[in-house]
Order: sequence, then structure tokens, then C-alpha cells
Amino acid sequence: MRSFIPPHRTLMGPGPSDISPQVLQALSRPTIGHLDPLFIQMMDELKSLLKYAFQTENEFTIALSAPGSAGMEACFVNLIEPGEKVIVCRNGVFGERMRQNVERCGGVAIVVDDEWGSPVSAQKLQSAVEEHSDAVAVAFVHAETSTGALSDAEALSKIARSKDMLVIVDAVTSLGGVPLKVDEWQLDAVYSGSQKCLSCTPGLSPLTFSSRAIAKIEARQHPVQSWFLDQSLVLGYWSGEGKRAYHHTAPVNSLYALHESLLILKEEGLEQAWKRHADTHQRLKEGLTDLGMSFVVDEEYRLPQLNAVYVPAGIDEALVRQRLLNEYNLEIGAGLGDLAGKAWRIGLMGYGARKENVALCLQALKEVLA
Amino acid sequence: MRSFIPPHRTLMGPGPSDISPQVLQALSRPTIGHLDPLFIQMMDELKSLLKYAFQTENEFTIALSAPGSAGMEACFVNLIEPGEKVIVCRNGVFGERMRQNVERCGGVAIVVDDEWGSPVSAQKLQSAVEEHSDAVAVAFVHAETSTGALSDAEALSKIARSKDMLVIVDAVTSLGGVPLKVDEWQLDAVYSGSQKCLSCTPGLSPLTFSSRAIAKIEARQHPVQSWFLDQSLVLGYWSGEGKRAYHHTAPVNSLYALHESLLILKEEGLEQAWKRHADTHQRLKEGLTDLGMSFVVDEEYRLPQLNAVYVPAGIDEALVRQRLLNEYNLEIGAGLGDLAGKAWRIGLMGYGARKENVALCLQALKEVLA
Repeated sequence: MRSFIPPHRTLMGPGPSDISPQVLQALSRPTIGHLDPLFIQMMDELKSLLKYAFQTENEFTIALSAPGSAGMEACFVNLIEPGEKVIVCRNGVFGERMRQNVERCGGVAIVVDDEWGSPVSAQKLQSAVEEHSDAVAVAFVHAETSTGALSDAEALSKIARSKDMLVIVDAVTSLGGVPLKVDEWQLDAVYSGSQKCLSCTPGLSPLTFSSRAIAKIEARQHPVQSWFLDQSLVLGYWSGEGKRAYHHTAPVNSLYALHESLLILKEEGLEQAWKRHADTHQRLKEGLTDLGMSFVVDEEYRLPQLNAVYVPAGIDEALVRQRLLNEYNLEIGAGLGDLAGKAWRIGLMGYGARKENVALCLQALKEVLA
Repeated sequence: MRSFIPPHRTLMGPGPSDISPQVLQALSRPTIGHLDPLFIQMMDELKSLLKYAFQTENEFTIALSAPGSAGMEACFVNLIEPGEKVIVCRNGVFGERMRQNVERCGGVAIVVDDEWGSPVSAQKLQSAVEEHSDAVAVAFVHAETSTGALSDAEALSKIARSKDMLVIVDAVTSLGGVPLKVDEWQLDAVYSGSQKCLSCTPGLSPLTFSSRAIAKIEARQHPVQSWFLDQSLVLGYWSGEGKRAYHHTAPVNSLYALHESLLILKEEGLEQAWKRHADTHQRLKEGLTDLGMSFVVDEEYRLPQLNAVYVPAGIDEALVRQRLLNEYNLEIGAGLGDLAGKAWRIGLMGYGARKENVALCLQALKEVLA
């Protein structure tokens, strides 16, 4: 057995996304202790960079030491108590996962279903909050990674707040790729992933809780069922007030990389990053349309960073992906869940949203499909 | 705000430990997709390297995508069902955390207490398993990171198994530093951390389940309360049989680093690594004794990789650590829990168990204490 030397792939799947060499370099800087004063300074900067990315002043804005699926779970186990009702909007794989999370922490999930590829319907949510006005929260996915559909988080939040419900949002694929305004839209608990439009290595989950969310946690009657995800235990660590108490050993090097990737985002500017994703998507869309492909999601709700297109009739979709990978070192994503075998998911995320990636993808697809 | 450029520290605290440049280099190799066939090959090798490190043939031997504290929680949420009794041996911070985990997943914890700095008493455990013969598991910490005490995992396991109880073991600080023989000692669920004697970056938790543990999971009456830690959902991913289903995005680069650090361990050989830890400890012990310091733990139960020594009378312990860090770029650990303010914890873990580290530590301590 030998050292593992990976090839250089161009990552245009649903994540992990292409990573800037600058971020990989940050990742391999010398490890220092997680309680080292210099590390704690870095963490303060990281928190401020995350607040910028989320467009929030939430004091509780952190990077969870685990992937986005743990970020999702952290929202439910902290905010929901046994017996509480949560309205879950489901229009893809991740809405369904939210439902499972609600039930696993003893909550009651009221599911509002929309078709795969459609956004969450504001009208259906409106009916649900009226029918279930005793629900404590509404949960939805801002950008469904399984389909590429964008939902109107601002409108959905307004509906939830009209009944004083907490708003829990999956922003795994949206953060950094399309507008996401946590404070302006009054979202209470928002989690993301490091490996999508932030173009950091996978394994961390940016997470922010509003003061309403924190108040809900502080008023809990039952202890949080997860020790690892119990955010009341780390409020002190991230608050910046006084001593950083030991909770667990932070993933030091991964946090260096996240700091670097957020710095890149801040230097570019959020608005510019959103524009770059939109522009790059436009180029890809034109090329894919020229190749005769059609999108799963209607143009109005389509995510620029995650392009789900139907596999043309008569094509062995797995073989195409395999050839792209083996011959062009290019990764595109398979369909997930209901779309398995029927669609490809082409990511243009973060550092991957570049003209050269679009050019490679279009030409390689053209050659392989020829 | 700028890129974070950490200084080069010598890490001699309780972890993260010093990391080989070879491991940092592996960490920053190009990210590939977590479903890439080459990544899956790497994961198969990683599994085989972990089996070597744990000395097990357990088919379920993985690296959890989160720190050791999540590894602990994974054992309890998967193996314990609500209402079940678990005997928890507590002789430091991590035994207490085990108790909290048992209770958070609805179990009943029967605590067997030993003094901080002492190993777990086989005699007390014997009484406990007799008194509580309806318990389904015994849990203990092999190497208590908070005190530096080593417990006799083989003897404790034998007692548990005499009553057909599962054996859950915290091997966070022991794996790679002192003998740990999962199969020979018949341990059922053993978790560790990447950042101790494996000298990898923090953030991953090696984990192994015996077939008895898997059978207990498969016979569960209640779903596992955590979605993220539900190992029944990833049995397929790690089994090596057929298709790798998507569960969450694996922390690709961190896994490169773990692969590399385990390769280094395998090349050195476990027995040689244990001997190196013991030899290096011997040098450190002699030097610390010459400086007039005394150990928290009796020689017989003392961990070579984690040396807890009492702070000499009249010394400002925090100032000493601060001077070591600022003037010598040397990190040693503070006391934790009952030992806070009273002891230092000096780690000689993995790549950190070297003569030059001992020499630096002894000379720097001598100068600062002068």
C-alpha cells in the first residue's frame, strides 16, 4: 500500500466543488492547538466572515465540526422538543431528510409536498400554517441539491412568521451561490455546507441561529438528545466572551481552509459572486440547449449553481459519466432519488463557476455524446 | 483581514498532536468526488489500515466524519435503546461524558466511580455486573485523556462478557500509543480520534463494531435517534459490497490525511510504535522527575503518551504555559475538570513521541521554571 495520489479532476457535480489552490494551501498549514490564542483569533475572524456570507448579525454564527447533514440535525435537535409540530416542505431528497430528522427527535412532521423540480409552493405553506397553527416551526430547503430548484425563502419565511413559527432553512447549496439574506428575510436557523459554493473541502457546516432560535433553546424543557450537537454547550465557546471552554477538539486545519475560502468570497464580494454564478450558468445553459438537452427545473426557479438536465433518450447515462471521468478527468453528478438514472446534475459552484469549466464540460459532453 | 498563517508550534498537549509533514502534504492533495471510483478504492485501503491499527477483522471498521466525541455518541445511540441499562465506569472527564451520552439516548446509566488518576477497578466492575446483571453493556475509557490513566481493557472486557454484556470502549488516546487488541480482547464497539497517537489532523473518529454490536443494531426496536450517526444507514457504504450509496459527503481531504497517517503507522509497525511511545515517555519521566515534578498517576497505570504532572507549589501554571507557547512555540496542556489549575498534561503522541520533543520540553520547562 502506498500514499494515495489523487488525479486532478474538474469537479462539476453536486459537490464537493472545485477548490482553489489557495484553499488547499491553507488546509496544509501547520496545525496549532484548538485552544491556542492565535487559533481563537482566527476563529473570531472566521465567525465574522461567516456573518458576512450569511448576511447576518447573529451572534451565534459558527462552523459545525461535521458535514451539512449534521448541520441539519443540529437545527432540529436543538430547536424542537418531543411532541412539537414542525411543518416540513418537501420537494426533493433534503426535504425528506428534514422530515426524518423531525421524527427522530420526537417531533411531529406535517409534510407539505411539492413535485420534484418545483419550488416549494407558498400557497400550500399558507394553507398548512393555517391548518396547523400550533406548529412551532417551518422547515424548507432553499436550494434543492437533488433537483436544482430554488424556493423563495423570503416569502416562505414571511408566511411562517405570520404565525410566529421559527424558520429553519437548508442553505447547503445556496450559500455563496445565490442571494441569501438571513437577517433581512428573518430566518431563524440556517445551515450550509463547506463543499458547495464556498468551495472549501467537505466536512464543515456553517450554521447560524437568530436570537429567537437561541431563546427557544434556552427555554427547553428536555435536554438536547445529542451531546455532540447540543449547541447550548458551545454557546460559550463561540460567544467571544471570556474563556473558551473545551467541548471537543476543533478540526483545526479544515477551519483554516474555510477561513481562506470565506476570505476569497469576501474579497470578490457576495453580489459579484452571485453574478458570476448567474453569468456562468447562462453560458452553460446555452451550450446544453444547443446540445439538445432540457432542464428539470423551469427557468424561473432554476439554480445557476446546480443544473439538472434530463439524460437524452437512448443514452447510457452511467457510461457517459464514466467516460467524462476517465477520459477528461471531469466529474458531473448522477441523478438522486426520483431522478436517479434520469438526469445529470452539473454543478457550477464557487471556484468551479468559471468559463473554462463550462467550456470543458460542453466540449467533453459533445464529444462523448457524438 | 488576511490569510491566516499559523506559526510552527511543537504540540505536546493532550491533542491535537504533532503532525508529520507527510500527512499535511497528503491533506492538501487535489479534492476528488466522494463517489469517485478512485476515492472508493482509497476508502477500502483506509478500512484495511484501520483494521490493522485496531487489530481487528471487524467488517464494520470506519472513520466517522466527525470528531471523537461524535464517535462516542455513535456507539451509544446505535447500541443502546431507551430504557436499557449501561454500566459506565467513570475515572475522569470522558467517563462522565459517557454517562451523559447514555442518558441522552434514553438509557439508564449505572456509574462505577474510581478516583481521578486511578484506573477503572476490575473489582468494582465485577460487583456492578453482578448487581446489575440486566445491563446490556459496559462502557469504559481505555486511556483517560484527562488524567493519563490506563485501564486494563482486557480484564474489564472479560468481566462484562461473563454476563454477556456488550463492551464499549473509548480508545481516543490509546489507539496507536499503547497496546489495543480489539479482537483478542473481545471489545464490541471501540472509537478513537484522528488527532492523538495517529497524528492526523483533528476531525475524524475511527470506529469499529463487532458482529455482536452489529447484531444488536440490527435487532433494534426503536430507530436510532440521530440521523447523522445512524450507522445502519452507512453499513452499505462501508461494506464494500456493490454500490456505494450516498449518505453524506465524506470529508475527502481529511480522509487522505488519515490514510497517510495510518500508512506511516503500518510502515513503522504497531509494536514498534508502542515501544517508541514507551521509550520516549521514559526519557520525559526522568527529566520531569529531575525537575522535581511528580505524576498524577501511579507508574503501573501511567500512559506513556499522556503525562499528567502536578504543578509545583507556588507556580502560576497558566503563565508557564503562556511563556512556553510565546517564547518556545511549545504547547503543553492544562489540567481538565478536577485537575484544572493543578496539573499539566504533556503529550507524547504519534509523530510527537520523539527525542527532540522531549529535549525541547525539558529544557524549556527548566528555563521557564528557573
